Amino acid sequence: MRMFDIIRKKRDGEELTTEEINFFIERYVKGEIPDYQASALLMAIFFKGMTERETADLTFAVRDSGARLDFSEIHGVRVDKHSTGGVGDKTSLVVAPIVATLGAKVAKMSGRGLGHTGGTIDKLESIPGFKTSLETSEFIKNVNEVGVCIVGQSQELAPADKKLYALRDVTATVDSLPLVVSSIMGKKLAADDDCIVLDVKTGSGAFAKTLEDSRALARAMVDIGKRAGKKMLALITDMDRPLGSAIGNSLEVIEAIDTLNGKGPADFTEICLILASNMLSLAGKGSVDECRKACEKAIADGTALETFAKMVRAQGGDDGVIYDTSGFAKAKYSCDVTCEESGYISHVDTEGYGVASLLLGAGRNTMDDVIDFSAGIILHKKTGDKVEAGDVIATLYTSDESRLEQAKMELLKSTKIDDKKPIERPLVLDTII
Amino acid sequence: MRMFDIIRKKRDGEELTTEEINFFIERYVKGEIPDYQASALLMAIFFKGMTERETADLTFAVRDSGARLDFSEIHGVRVDKHSTGGVGDKTSLVVAPIVATLGAKVAKMSGRGLGHTGGTIDKLESIPGFKTSLETSEFIKNVNEVGVCIVGQSQELAPADKKLYALRDVTATVDSLPLVVSSIMGKKLAADDDCIVLDVKTGSGAFAKTLEDSRALARAMVDIGKRAGKKMLALITDMDRPLGSAIGNSLEVIEAIDTLNGKGPADFTEICLILASNMLSLAGKGSVDECRKACEKAIADGTALETFAKMVRAQGGDDGVIYDTSGFAKAKYSCDVTCEESGYISHVDTEGYGVASLLLGAGRNTMDDVIDFSAGIILHKKTGDKVEAGDVIATLYTSDESRLEQAKMELLKSTKIDDKKPIERPLVLDTII
Repeated sequence: MRMFDIIRKKRDGEELTTEEINFFIERYVKGEIPDYQASALLMAIFFKGMTERETADLTFAVRDSGARLDFSEIHGVRVDKHSTGGVGDKTSLVVAPIVATLGAKVAKMSGRGLGHTGGTIDKLESIPGFKTSLETSEFIKNVNEVGVCIVGQSQELAPADKKLYALRDVTATVDSLPLVVSSIMGKKLAADDDCIVLDVKTGSGAFAKTLEDSRALARAMVDIGKRAGKKMLALITDMDRPLGSAIGNSLEVIEAIDTLNGKGPADFTEICLILASNMLSLAGKGSVDECRKACEKAIADGTALETFAKMVRAQGGDDGVIYDTSGFAKAKYSCDVTCEESGYISHVDTEGYGVASLLLGAGRNTMDDVIDFSAGIILHKKTGDKVEAGDVIATLYTSDESRLEQAKMELLKSTKIDDKKPIERPLVLDTII
Repeated sequence: MRMFDIIRKKRDGEELTTEEINFFIERYVKGEIPDYQASALLMAIFFKGMTERETADLTFAVRDSGARLDFSEIHGVRVDKHSTGGVGDKTSLVVAPIVATLGAKVAKMSGRGLGHTGGTIDKLESIPGFKTSLETSEFIKNVNEVGVCIVGQSQELAPADKKLYALRDVTATVDSLPLVVSSIMGKKLAADDDCIVLDVKTGSGAFAKTLEDSRALARAMVDIGKRAGKKMLALITDMDRPLGSAIGNSLEVIEAIDTLNGKGPADFTEICLILASNMLSLAGKGSVDECRKACEKAIADGTALETFAKMVRAQGGDDGVIYDTSGFAKAKYSCDVTCEESGYISHVDTEGYGVASLLLGAGRNTMDDVIDFSAGIILHKKTGDKVEAGDVIATLYTSDESRLEQAKMELLKSTKIDDKKPIERPLVLDTII
């Protein structure tokens, strides 16, 4: 078997065999296939796609490229949630403690942010003392005792994905359905959960920009998860607006705490309740409606916030800031952004908002960049809101004053103001089971 | 400017600017752009193609990637010929001395063989003592004194093409019109000729398998050559049969000598006369018909063979073998191939014949392989010939007996025998000016 023939076959639109896909992944991880052949194959896959069978084989090859986790010592049903990524998406911080409070176990591995999207691990590390790297035994002990533990992805988990993702990122081959599916599901299936709820974002800030593309992506991931014996459900959620009002690491943690206190933004609170109730229902804790009521109660009576504080303590963090968020580090500089026209915010380019946040220091251009945890954006006006010229639509935060001007330009460029109030899009556009 | 954006742009079918193409070639040659980004771009070009303007820019960028030659010290009109490559194509060995005999100058840089196609330089090196690497001053002196000199390509000539070709060869991106055009013409234009005749092969053994593809390839190369101020002409010639009866290095040199002696195979002699008369006519030496008559005379009176012998002597070769070809090294083993059916040879897969010759040791799988100069094939029956079961259709030659069986299978597999005599295809299918 030769890598050259595998590239040529895919280039000519032929279906690769299971053996050919395994050959590629195994040899590539070992360094026996050079990056330049891998990137040629990735570009051919970008153009020619993959059949369902090929995509499943690629996913399983990625899953099996490293150590697989064993969660058998965790008591109870293990449920996970995965978002295809977005701007200002801090749902995991709210959903995980709610679900854990109501009896399902959340043993979560999360990623770091790159480019215009944030990562749960970076957000948690803005909590003073919080450790995102634990021994497996401690991780499992925490899940059993607290109900939830969130750590960074182990280096041994699906190493093929790490290598492939780094390559895709610099060769313009990220946006390919089979490659997105095998990357997400390869990692998810290497963990040992019983149920997985997928939050597939659709809109300007997401990989899948149309509802049709999002359905195809969700369907592919749900089917592959089921083939691997998991209970699966995908929600297609709107990404034509940022989630909540905060973008940036500690700003998002504070918004998550507010939400667990019952004082979060309405749209963000709603999406958290939908996700948590679907996770619990999939885990066998009742109908979605029953679970929804339980989730609302867990917020109202403070037990969800308590679980969050317990998790922070168990992972070495200072839980004082949970009860008094003024304890988070403050940005040195801030600046209000005012709009120049009157009308309604008809559309925002959420990717542009992510770029503005990145410019302020809240994200990384390369994996070696250091994050400014206090940097970011608070939105005062969102899609559908009426504005007058001169209204403050957002406040920017940073430790580097020189970054304010460019971020402001980016934010304004990404905000469209129109005469007419835009039609309101539902938060959840479809459910794929 | 970022290589990532250039890849994404081409991936999305957009036209690259001159600056972007120059950025890619300049940085790639310097090693500042990694192979994995270059191969992703090459695969995107494979799928999305390039406009005429982009192809010209890529060609000029390849031409300018290294030193350009200066032939101003050569007296007279400088004319070159380039074949897009084929199996058993030894036309340069016959055409160059004829043209030089009749007053045009041939200052030729040729390549080595790789895979199933041979290279002029390897063929010439089968002549004992022949040197294919000369100082520029000696090269120019030879051209002025003999009229012709053929050497290997200088390492400084179009280094971008060397690097890109090596990459295309292992990433299944060889077969792309803009990449073929920029590779051939980039090198040709880095030399300093006045006129260029292109021999564009069409058929099973060639890159362009249909007449339509061949016309497009020829047109693109002729237009770019004209843009660069050259007199250009392309002949589209049949490659659905190997040229002449010999495949393999010294076997082909012997066939070329036979042809210069007026005793070559009819099809091969004819194509040599057509190429030589078009080169001379383009160089201003009369009409194609007039030049054809002069070429026939140069063969008949032995002056063309004499020029070939002079060239061999001037490049350190033993010209004794020119007048007595029994002086060439002989293969240790040989074996006749008989056909199993009766009928007509209706079609041969010339690429398969090339592979059989490669298996016998006449070619290279990688640039590090050592060539067996005496290995190869003599064809006794060709497309259109009537055969009886048991007839010897070819004889194989090699220094490694173990290779005979596989080569025989490959040759038989590539020979189709049918009841009906196939329609004869003309040798030259079109002329593009």
